[in-house]
Amino acid sequence: MTAYSELMAFARETTALEQVAGRNGWDQETFMPHGAADQRAEELAAMESMLHARRTDPRVGDWLAAAEAAEQGQVERAQLRHIRRSFDRANKVPAKLSSEIARVTSKAHRVWAEARQNDDFAGFAATVTEVVRLRREEAAALAVGGNLYDALLNDYEPGATEGEIAAMFDALRPRLVALRQAVLGKPAPKGLQGTFDDATQMKMARKVAKVFGYDMARGRVDKSVHPFTSGSGNDVRITTRTTPSDPFNCIYSTIHEVGHGAYEQNVDQAYLLTPIGGGVSMGVHESQSRIYENQLGRSRAFTGWLYDQMVEAYGDIGVADAGAFYAAVNTVHKGYIRTEADEVQYNLHIMLRFDLERGLIGGTLEVADLEEAWNARFVSDFGYAVDKASNGVLQDVHWSAGLFGYFPTYSLGNVYAGCLHQALRDAVPDLDAQLARGDTAEATSWLRESLQRHGGLYEPREVITRACGVEPSEAPLLDYLEAKFGALYGV
Amino acid sequence: MTAYSELMAFARETTALEQVAGRNGWDQETFMPHGAADQRAEELAAMESMLHARRTDPRVGDWLAAAEAAEQGQVERAQLRHIRRSFDRANKVPAKLSSEIARVTSKAHRVWAEARQNDDFAGFAATVTEVVRLRREEAAALAVGGNLYDALLNDYEPGATEGEIAAMFDALRPRLVALRQAVLGKPAPKGLQGTFDDATQMKMARKVAKVFGYDMARGRVDKSVHPFTSGSGNDVRITTRTTPSDPFNCIYSTIHEVGHGAYEQNVDQAYLLTPIGGGVSMGVHESQSRIYENQLGRSRAFTGWLYDQMVEAYGDIGVADAGAFYAAVNTVHKGYIRTEADEVQYNLHIMLRFDLERGLIGGTLEVADLEEAWNARFVSDFGYAVDKASNGVLQDVHWSAGLFGYFPTYSLGNVYAGCLHQALRDAVPDLDAQLARGDTAEATSWLRESLQRHGGLYEPREVITRACGVEPSEAPLLDYLEAKFGALYGV
Repeated sequence: MTAYSELMAFARETTALEQVAGRNGWDQETFMPHGAADQRAEELAAMESMLHARRTDPRVGDWLAAAEAAEQGQVERAQLRHIRRSFDRANKVPAKLSSEIARVTSKAHRVWAEARQNDDFAGFAATVTEVVRLRREEAAALAVGGNLYDALLNDYEPGATEGEIAAMFDALRPRLVALRQAVLGKPAPKGLQGTFDDATQMKMARKVAKVFGYDMARGRVDKSVHPFTSGSGNDVRITTRTTPSDPFNCIYSTIHEVGHGAYEQNVDQAYLLTPIGGGVSMGVHESQSRIYENQLGRSRAFTGWLYDQMVEAYGDIGVADAGAFYAAVNTVHKGYIRTEADEVQYNLHIMLRFDLERGLIGGTLEVADLEEAWNARFVSDFGYAVDKASNGVLQDVHWSAGLFGYFPTYSLGNVYAGCLHQALRDAVPDLDAQLARGDTAEATSWLRESLQRHGGLYEPREVITRACGVEPSEAPLLDYLEAKFGALYGV
Repeated sequence: MTAYSELMAFARETTALEQVAGRNGWDQETFMPHGAADQRAEELAAMESMLHARRTDPRVGDWLAAAEAAEQGQVERAQLRHIRRSFDRANKVPAKLSSEIARVTSKAHRVWAEARQNDDFAGFAATVTEVVRLRREEAAALAVGGNLYDALLNDYEPGATEGEIAAMFDALRPRLVALRQAVLGKPAPKGLQGTFDDATQMKMARKVAKVFGYDMARGRVDKSVHPFTSGSGNDVRITTRTTPSDPFNCIYSTIHEVGHGAYEQNVDQAYLLTPIGGGVSMGVHESQSRIYENQLGRSRAFTGWLYDQMVEAYGDIGVADAGAFYAAVNTVHKGYIRTEADEVQYNLHIMLRFDLERGLIGGTLEVADLEEAWNARFVSDFGYAVDKASNGVLQDVHWSAGLFGYFPTYSLGNVYAGCLHQALRDAVPDLDAQLARGDTAEATSWLRESLQRHGGLYEPREVITRACGVEPSEAPLLDYLEAKFGALYGV
């Protein structure tokens, strides 16, 4: 056996074990009996510790060195790149620091949830200070003299830099702020009316998931508090949620997760259970969930089909026709909460977080000043003040979990989705006619063939560039948003 | 740290990982999308290989030797006994043989299912010959010169011997055969009439599970093709199934699995995620499922309560009163299938299998003669001929899975249940009055306190003896069956 084949046999087993650990996480959020929580934490810690031992196994280092020294094909080089990244990362961080981070962030979740409940940032400050301190220490171990924020960002978006992200937001900001102001100066469209029963919503969710090409033979749709996608290859599960007064929550959460899920399902089966067998980065992942949800799912054409489905399922839903329904789907409203934001405002929420978290990691912002910094920035970007911490600095779970460097991947996904949408329109000229009859087959096939099937074969930015035929930029997203919301709001 | 505490830290992690693997198995039988089957097989193999490496880890041998040499308390000695057994077993069997058995039995399942479908024992003979050969080889490695069948039996019932089991069946056989003949000479009671909808059956299943003390905060009730129990401690899940024409299938499958599940839930929390934290053997496990299902669940008193529930849920069910309902629950009927057998005939099915499989493992019966031996023995025990292989030698999955030595634990469980029932009646004189109002609290508390809470603290036979106050024997079961069915059938 060659070093490469020994390494791959080991990596394949590790990937299979990661799938098992992930499914246990899925179970925790869906079907786990609540009395099992403490036992489950111990089980997951045992899996994590076992996986960490495999990732840092000295044999991996030996096999890697030998395999990298030999001539290899394209797929082999990609596998080696992924294994090398994981091996180096796991070995750079002292085991003691890793388990300290796991311990502190696990406790931090409860502290954050309680602080949010009480709108009490002071109750969270000591904890987040500790999390920042530990993640900075980890970043220093990873960066080896380089940029701390880059080191963290690279966990989610390999190859991306703080500088690139800052440039992206510089490009987005002026036109988004202007569009937002123009749109909010106009009257808001009428919303839906009625009560939407749970069973019908879930039936609609499964129907819409199938319409978007999600393979139910290799997946499931269940409910959880926060929708998410879990697994890779031939067992990829999504969750959604229902709100009696707002059927859009369920529908668009489902389409969003279907974007993530289809990406994982559609990676080339030749890569199944290998390091390149899943989505390549959070940004590219988010580009799939966003283009499914927004550019396709919230389009005039698709919402025309959806309107008929809604009327058939619920009868009168309080809007006059498909046009009014389209406006309701795309309402731009004032608010505080990132996860409830529309396409126009979403990235403004992200750039606020990006600037604050790179301040925390870079050492130019203290946790003691974080709430004030959030509130000041919010007024300046949104034009009104945060009324309580749960609508401001305490709204997101990410920082309690130590996820610094994660937020920008949401906006990166939006930008990538804009680029992919432009290329898709070129490739499928009569896309609107197809979407208008609830047919996404050609669109999702194009995404599968151009991007999803490659898994981790190419680096994130490279796979987007290949799919689009040009380097990604912010312009297509901005052009799309201005055209869409300009027409909708007459601005 | 002492060798004992190092060993226990390692064993605790192994136990946690076993729970994760077990839950993945549960998922496979309940919620797994069917397209995930091959991927899942690879995931489970990776878990098994990782667990095997832990069980044979040389450090375990060193820690064990050091800990065994030191003075230890009762709990510590029990933990060491369990770890020693697992370590020696895993090390005695060559890794190559273990994986060969896993490979062959995995393939054998499909071959058996197809042969059963076609009533074609010849199509299964070569496969079962191979399985017998491999398990005999494994038994020889385990027995080191001792009895081969004992070595296999001890996987399921530590400490039991072929000789003891044979003596048990010698004691059971004459009185069971006589009782069966007498009962089958009498007219059969009237069965239920009606169609029983799925949702109501599942509602009833959950109600009955709670009535028998199953803790829903630390468990779940779902559906699967074959009912089973999975997990230990604070996440113990059971499954059941529904048949539209026969509501007893669901109810008694549920009560049976609740017996297994309650045992796992009720082990002392101090033993959680340790080697003694689960049921101690298959025989003791089965004693719990059987006493819940039969001595309690099929009693005149409890079926009186159940009759009222059924009438309330379904209206007219075709029997006149609680007495007729009790007779319907306990119908003794001719048949071929073990899993459909009543309390009178069940052990006759087991002793047939025991004699054949000890012949196969002992080398006195060839697979080529197995079908003929089965059919001859069946006529002699049951008085009529097997009509097709799926009603005979091909009916059970066990041998295809290599589970030789497993069958006798079902009868051992019945005998133990008989003993426990006698002791329970002494401890709770007004048990019938409680069961008649659907109250099993005192009965299940007695079982929990006398037996279940101990987990693996005592050896199987010892924990039964402690609970009953006397050594187990066949007499209580036989006396109970003769009294119950004698009264029911007037014999």
